[in-house]
Amino acid sequence: MGQPMADYVKLPQLDEYKEWFASFADLYREDGILQVTWKTNDGVMHHSGMSHRAMSQLTRVLSLDYKNEIIIYTHIGDNWMIESDPNGWETYSQLPTQRFQHQYFDDTNLIKNMIFDLDVPTIGAIPGSGFHWDSAMLCDVTICTEDTVMEVPHAQGGLVPGDGMGLMAQHYFGTKRGNYYMMTTRQFTAKDMLDFGMVSEVVPKGKAVERAWEIAKMWKKMSYENRTIMSDLAKRPLQKLLVQDLKLHTVSEQYGSLLSIAGGTLGDEHSGQQDEKYISRVNDWRYATNDMQKPQNAESWVGMPKKAAEWFKDLEENGEPNPFAVADVKPYRPGK
Amino acid sequence: MGQPMADYVKLPQLDEYKEWFASFADLYREDGILQVTWKTNDGVMHHSGMSHRAMSQLTRVLSLDYKNEIIIYTHIGDNWMIESDPNGWETYSQLPTQRFQHQYFDDTNLIKNMIFDLDVPTIGAIPGSGFHWDSAMLCDVTICTEDTVMEVPHAQGGLVPGDGMGLMAQHYFGTKRGNYYMMTTRQFTAKDMLDFGMVSEVVPKGKAVERAWEIAKMWKKMSYENRTIMSDLAKRPLQKLLVQDLKLHTVSEQYGSLLSIAGGTLGDEHSGQQDEKYISRVNDWRYATNDMQKPQNAESWVGMPKKAAEWFKDLEENGEPNPFAVADVKPYRPGK
Amino acid sequence: MGQPMADYVKLPQLDEYKEWFASFADLYREDGILQVTWKTNDGVMHHSGMSHRAMSQLTRVLSLDYKNEIIIYTHIGDNWMIESDPNGWETYSQLPTQRFQHQYFDDTNLIKNMIFDLDVPTIGAIPGSGFHWDSAMLCDVTICTEDTVMEVPHAQGGLVPGDGMGLMAQHYFGTKRGNYYMMTTRQFTAKDMLDFGMVSEVVPKGKAVERAWEIAKMWKKMSYENRTIMSDLAKRPLQKLLVQDLKLHTVSEQYGSLLSIAGGTLGDEHSGQQDEKYISRVNDWRYATNDMQKPQNAESWVGMPKKAAEWFKDLEENGEPNPFAVADVKPYRPGK
Amino acid sequence: MGQPMADYVKLPQLDEYKEWFASFADLYREDGILQVTWKTNDGVMHHSGMSHRAMSQLTRVLSLDYKNEIIIYTHIGDNWMIESDPNGWETYSQLPTQRFQHQYFDDTNLIKNMIFDLDVPTIGAIPGSGFHWDSAMLCDVTICTEDTVMEVPHAQGGLVPGDGMGLMAQHYFGTKRGNYYMMTTRQFTAKDMLDFGMVSEVVPKGKAVERAWEIAKMWKKMSYENRTIMSDLAKRPLQKLLVQDLKLHTVSEQYGSLLSIAGGTLGDEHSGQQDEKYISRVNDWRYATNDMQKPQNAESWVGMPKKAAEWFKDLEENGEPNPFAVADVKPYRPGK
Amino acid sequence: MGQPMADYVKLPQLDEYKEWFASFADLYREDGILQVTWKTNDGVMHHSGMSHRAMSQLTRVLSLDYKNEIIIYTHIGDNWMIESDPNGWETYSQLPTQRFQHQYFDDTNLIKNMIFDLDVPTIGAIPGSGFHWDSAMLCDVTICTEDTVMEVPHAQGGLVPGDGMGLMAQHYFGTKRGNYYMMTTRQFTAKDMLDFGMVSEVVPKGKAVERAWEIAKMWKKMSYENRTIMSDLAKRPLQKLLVQDLKLHTVSEQYGSLLSIAGGTLGDEHSGQQDEKYISRVNDWRYATNDMQKPQNAESWVGMPKKAAEWFKDLEENGEPNPFAVADVKPYRPGK
Amino acid sequence: MGQPMADYVKLPQLDEYKEWFASFADLYREDGILQVTWKTNDGVMHHSGMSHRAMSQLTRVLSLDYKNEIIIYTHIGDNWMIESDPNGWETYSQLPTQRFQHQYFDDTNLIKNMIFDLDVPTIGAIPGSGFHWDSAMLCDVTICTEDTVMEVPHAQGGLVPGDGMGLMAQHYFGTKRGNYYMMTTRQFTAKDMLDFGMVSEVVPKGKAVERAWEIAKMWKKMSYENRTIMSDLAKRPLQKLLVQDLKLHTVSEQYGSLLSIAGGTLGDEHSGQQDEKYISRVNDWRYATNDMQKPQNAESWVGMPKKAAEWFKDLEENGEPNPFAVADVKPYRPGK
Repeated sequence: MGQPMADYVKLPQLDEYKEWFASFADLYREDGILQVTWKTNDGVMHHSGMSHRAMSQLTRVLSLDYKNEIIIYTHIGDNWMIESDPNGWETYSQLPTQRFQHQYFDDTNLIKNMIFDLDVPTIGAIPGSGFHWDSAMLCDVTICTEDTVMEVPHAQGGLVPGDGMGLMAQHYFGTKRGNYYMMTTRQFTAKDMLDFGMVSEVVPKGKAVERAWEIAKMWKKMSYENRTIMSDLAKRPLQKLLVQDLKLHTVSEQYGSLLSIAGGTLGDEHSGQQDEKYISRVNDWRYATNDMQKPQNAESWVGMPKKAAEWFKDLEENGEPNPFAVADVKPYRPGK
Repeated sequence: MGQPMADYVKLPQLDEYKEWFASFADLYREDGILQVTWKTNDGVMHHSGMSHRAMSQLTRVLSLDYKNEIIIYTHIGDNWMIESDPNGWETYSQLPTQRFQHQYFDDTNLIKNMIFDLDVPTIGAIPGSGFHWDSAMLCDVTICTEDTVMEVPHAQGGLVPGDGMGLMAQHYFGTKRGNYYMMTTRQFTAKDMLDFGMVSEVVPKGKAVERAWEIAKMWKKMSYENRTIMSDLAKRPLQKLLVQDLKLHTVSEQYGSLLSIAGGTLGDEHSGQQDEKYISRVNDWRYATNDMQKPQNAESWVGMPKKAAEWFKDLEENGEPNPFAVADVKPYRPGK
Repeated sequence: MGQPMADYVKLPQLDEYKEWFASFADLYREDGILQVTWKTNDGVMHHSGMSHRAMSQLTRVLSLDYKNEIIIYTHIGDNWMIESDPNGWETYSQLPTQRFQHQYFDDTNLIKNMIFDLDVPTIGAIPGSGFHWDSAMLCDVTICTEDTVMEVPHAQGGLVPGDGMGLMAQHYFGTKRGNYYMMTTRQFTAKDMLDFGMVSEVVPKGKAVERAWEIAKMWKKMSYENRTIMSDLAKRPLQKLLVQDLKLHTVSEQYGSLLSIAGGTLGDEHSGQQDEKYISRVNDWRYATNDMQKPQNAESWVGMPKKAAEWFKDLEENGEPNPFAVADVKPYRPGK
Repeated sequence: MGQPMADYVKLPQLDEYKEWFASFADLYREDGILQVTWKTNDGVMHHSGMSHRAMSQLTRVLSLDYKNEIIIYTHIGDNWMIESDPNGWETYSQLPTQRFQHQYFDDTNLIKNMIFDLDVPTIGAIPGSGFHWDSAMLCDVTICTEDTVMEVPHAQGGLVPGDGMGLMAQHYFGTKRGNYYMMTTRQFTAKDMLDFGMVSEVVPKGKAVERAWEIAKMWKKMSYENRTIMSDLAKRPLQKLLVQDLKLHTVSEQYGSLLSIAGGTLGDEHSGQQDEKYISRVNDWRYATNDMQKPQNAESWVGMPKKAAEWFKDLEENGEPNPFAVADVKPYRPGK
Repeated sequence: MGQPMADYVKLPQLDEYKEWFASFADLYREDGILQVTWKTNDGVMHHSGMSHRAMSQLTRVLSLDYKNEIIIYTHIGDNWMIESDPNGWETYSQLPTQRFQHQYFDDTNLIKNMIFDLDVPTIGAIPGSGFHWDSAMLCDVTICTEDTVMEVPHAQGGLVPGDGMGLMAQHYFGTKRGNYYMMTTRQFTAKDMLDFGMVSEVVPKGKAVERAWEIAKMWKKMSYENRTIMSDLAKRPLQKLLVQDLKLHTVSEQYGSLLSIAGGTLGDEHSGQQDEKYISRVNDWRYATNDMQKPQNAESWVGMPKKAAEWFKDLEENGEPNPFAVADVKPYRPGK
Repeated sequence: MGQPMADYVKLPQLDEYKEWFASFADLYREDGILQVTWKTNDGVMHHSGMSHRAMSQLTRVLSLDYKNEIIIYTHIGDNWMIESDPNGWETYSQLPTQRFQHQYFDDTNLIKNMIFDLDVPTIGAIPGSGFHWDSAMLCDVTICTEDTVMEVPHAQGGLVPGDGMGLMAQHYFGTKRGNYYMMTTRQFTAKDMLDFGMVSEVVPKGKAVERAWEIAKMWKKMSYENRTIMSDLAKRPLQKLLVQDLKLHTVSEQYGSLLSIAGGTLGDEHSGQQDEKYISRVNDWRYATNDMQKPQNAESWVGMPKKAAEWFKDLEENGEPNPFAVADVKPYRPGK
């Protein structure tokens, strides 16, 4: 047979595109298994408009490379994302276009691309507590450590819980239980998540990524084709759910926020009514205590900023560093 | 700007419409939070064609008043509805039109209006055992007391469990578990309902409405707009379910009953095959004992009317009042 | 049998509630057939925040009265709604609460209540051209006159066509054709609507309501029960569509408008980018000419306000009244 | 390799099961193409409880024989089914069990089995006008002759149009147009059906089955496997529709009829309110005239029995046979 | 009234069709309750192309007999199906037609017919561990014994888990938990199945069928009609799921297998990559040990054939019979 | 405010990625409107495994660039794609992995990415006849020229029509009409496509892209945000359809082809049973004649290769070039 008139398109390879995302993710591939480790520069990931967008972009770019046969999503260090970049939300506020692109595209694609772009098995490896847990929970299989606690935090901050976390809570926990955790912001523990069907296995501290690699290597015993087809069947329930409901959720949250902005009632960062860019302020405190694991009420919601402030002050006075804002951590590498 | 050509329609306000429903519900509103307390006159609610219709009508009327920002549904006294008005079903039997309006409109609207008419957050506060638990379970969040037991009772009475309770059992419990409880009429306890995902929190006896107000007041910390949008997202899974299946359920039950009526095989009130208007007869007994919490069989089903009769006789002989048919109870009022 | 413990709730009857809505609708009932004639005071209906809300409220109130066995929706005079009340949108602009209630509740309920609240057969009788044709097109059967032209006008005014008209265009016309008419604002004629499946019959000018009564009286030959059940089956395809998509449509439009408002880019009434309250400005012109029946382009969109202004000026200079803004018209009454 | 422990089940073959159905269908198979010709004994099919049940049973039995590779459904003689067996509805009336089995099983299965049991390509060949056109219209491809007219006749007879014909009208014609024809019983012609998307090709009188064989033989050029898979994709839109809605339609019709029976308002055969067993009375007249092709009204509905009676009387007085109740017709055989 | 023109079709009765299926199922009916006991000849059922097809055919044939009012599905002996007929897959391998009929028809119909053909209540009675548990789990109510363990085994054998077991795991267990068990082949115990919602009751060893009869007799206290309608409501969630997803699952598995066959990479019976006809090889071992109840990894997957071989060798050397391949067992009969 | 910790990811810009795709598409952007012109090197596009993959990749890459505000898809020259690269299918045949990636990823993504990746308005501009018309028909608005004819050609070539064209025919044409054209391969003309709802406007030869730019420029009069949201609403019906059915369609076609390959029955290029890589052989002939616009039969299907061969021979003997395989054509540029 002769030559085709034109050869396959040469798309950028891992060596090239890993550099594009170097500020936000460490990419490591071995035997077709790609480990994505979220981070900001050399430390834990700090939530920002930039990292937010990078998450949806990376998934789409990964989907173009057929050499990524199995993907593990994890977060650097001992926890999932907890910190926020205080200077990372400027462009998010610029109306109308930049805010729109953040809200209408990034908010949705962050979720959607995990399920509609990726055609291969995925594993979420959660090393500890944190928020914006979508890229872990949307995986086919999800591992978390025993100490992990999580929540759908929006309502406490005055926001509509429409970024996909509430939708996942409804789907994984069941409608009634999902609505409860979504509407009251109560935290759920690792045991809750296993019992309620949001994670697949709970492992000892420090073992989540290791177990993810163990499962990935197990899947390598199947043929590439059958393992891939299996993952498509695994994603189908979420494909159906997301196409029905995701856009309504994200637009609903954004509409609610804009009502406040246009009405001039969006409070400053100390108020209960907060936009997404402020919502991570009380995160450190909420993962350092277990107050949010109890049923919540008006007092617990309102008192949170003050309690968080006091907790920070104590840290400072004691000369202790914030245990969650860690730099100089290294991504996991599978043992040779 | 000048005057509009015509002003907003003036619809009846709370003070007016609360009187319309005074026989069946106590309506109390404070700071936008409306508490609906089901009752009949001054005592516990007695199931009747009249109360049945009033439930669907009230929800629709409440939805027309934007001042109802959050709604709590509860039942007066220590239990959910258990009693039946023996003279309350006459019009239900009149064929074809009156029975049709009861069955085709009221049966469906009782369920549907909770989810399609109400655009605001809802809380069900269950003070204890009872049946026709739809207006509590269809709320976004549902609180029950530790002693609460409930069931889908139709099959024991020979009826198709199509009034929406079976559908909710399938949805909240999962298909297999829901079908089991629906098809065998076994009771589920407060703990079961929490574990299986039908209630949100279980609280000590006497504390259900109090906790409901606590949650309502917590939500008042969110903006009116965002709290409202959040409740719409909470209702969406049921919106999808009900539009697909509810009408099939209710018409199926009604069709089954009419087959018996037209065929002349609908038994008297002592037979196993009973129409809805007789089905609440054994209710007192079933909430006074724990026989229905065990797996059921032909003997337990058939023996129920006799056991209930004996239980009533004992009460009478001992000069004890029926503990469930209480008059002169007061609706809960939130503490100031 | 004895007396029920409490009688049916006494809800307001037609004589009472027709007065509530007297500014916006003439209500006439004969033999169970209710004719709703939209209007403002004694003339054609002028679009306003008040009339907008009244439409959704009236449908809900009508649904509570089982004596409304068949409902005809029409508009007073020779056309469907064309005019706008220039002073009728003040409250619509008040952020956040009043605008929210208009947008989030009224915009959705206007559509939803026609399909979810009404359990009886409905007929839309369109006497001529106009916009906000939802209450006619959502009926089980729709009659229009030969001269009727309509469109989905939002895009020309810079708005997202999310108020339900675009959704109906997709559903009745098919996806591709519906999108085309929705995205280009091209008008469709009576013949188009018949061929594409949006109306049921096209009748000579002046005969739409008469034919609606003819059909209503035909249905009276069926039993009340079967006629009612038939109408529920007729509404089911729209029930499924609306629960899936309507809220996404309405929130999407509202989100888009708020982006402009919050961003300060919402133009004045002469700009292309208009909010709903200005969009009806060019209506008279567009029903007086056939320019919008042709394929549209940038020039035709941009030139519309100027052409409309010239047309108005001509009218004025010729001392002719606006043929669409008619007062002192009488609602149709069926011949005896 | 050795022998299997037990061989395939030996199910009855065509030679055997064609005898089971000999009263209602002629079965002829050539090269894997099975032609089903509906009939009663040696003449045109007469609608009866027996033929009604046979239709659903035959489809299920055919599905068990993998030798039926392509199936053509047609009706003997020059028309589709028009006649009714006046003695064929006795068991249909026996309450509750026999009527239930007819209504709940047969009514649904007649439709459902065409789409869920058959895994092979199907062709409907309509030789002329008639009712109960489900087994022709549910085929993957449907051919009718130029003179064919059809309708959804229930409403004129006072019944809920829930037997699947109305559902198909909604699906094939679009919601608005389907509802119109379903709710007004107006007839649609061959040209209408082609334009509105209910038939695939319109052919000259006498050519429908011939064209069906031509298409079947064309498909034989494809591999058995691919032709079969293609037919499954063709059936999928109806699989989705039927599982969502069919049962609601059939139960709704049956519920409506039972309301009348239980209420004692089901009239005699001359009344407007008729049960299914009487509804075919006016069939001959309606296919002999074109009165029903016009928009219908109360007079046309009510006058039908009388007009039909007069038409019959004329026939009798003129000594002419009923042109539709033909015996001694032969099923089509493909030319060699 | 006279005689109908033609009587009901006489379909084969139980006495006749039980003989057709005598190699694969014992059929016993008492008072309308039919017990289907899977078997091969006089011993436990051995998985084969023949038994596979017989399962789907039997359900379809049973559905044609209205005398089967309630159906119990069980397996002979102390376990569900574990064994495979080594000579039972020859025809499965014949390409393209025979393999196609096995895969495209039988694989799907085995599942589909349980839900779409049967219109009556069904009970699965599981006497102990085993695979291909579809006909038990698809029943309205499912009973298993305390020692039962099950799994979705395909992935360990290199196959796509698309035969319906994975789909049921997703539906009954929830998406996340179902995917985990489907993708890792970990076994679930009787307690897991009760807690996760896959079985209805867990009973002592030897009591599953007895309890099934107890429930069946309980349902006989309801009217035939209402019990039947109730079972239709019970099946509806699976009807919706299967029509959406089942065909995609089965075709996906089959496509994956054919890729290996066409590519010549389908290994021999000792390889990880196995076609369905070899997959039951390691079954005995996996039900004799509890290795698969633990989280799985590459080693556990790869080591299975060797461990199974050693276990068999031990049996042989000890002169012990395979405890699962039992002949001369008797089907259960209800006590009188 | 300070600097964010890390800036946005810098993804490749148009100048860079247009070079990646230079063999298959000309990319031209002006004022945010991107025109994609399919081609192979400097001539018309030749269908190949390479161009097939490039189509899905390009759409995904375009979606990552927010500067692409509106996208026009067209084909170079006077027609849509007609030609095939005879050497372009080698890798497609390599089993299992390469064929799998072509079939399972590319076949699906070609369709899916148009609807799920693109968040902006799209216009298909069809300059004339051709196949693989997905990227034109999946656009929000589609323009074709008066001479355009198209078809779903698979069945004639012996393939399952599962690549998405058949699905679109069902959706745009309606189920019955879509199945007919899909199952008989009859061609549909420009007028058919307009009447049946597959294209939006039909324009004179040579004017399709010009009209597409006219519409794009019209949309530029709307704000970027609202125009984008509108396009999401336009895509929603296809989002729902594709997530339900697309994967089943594509896997079904691929499964059917593999059955033939594994069974050794896939014929050579002259046989009726052809794999996708041969199917375009008769394309030139079928667009040069109008034979396929008539109802098809076995003879027309079988005779096609011979007729095509004769047509080619005539061309050669007359020394005429193939009018469809044009090189040296220039992409359209909008007039300034």
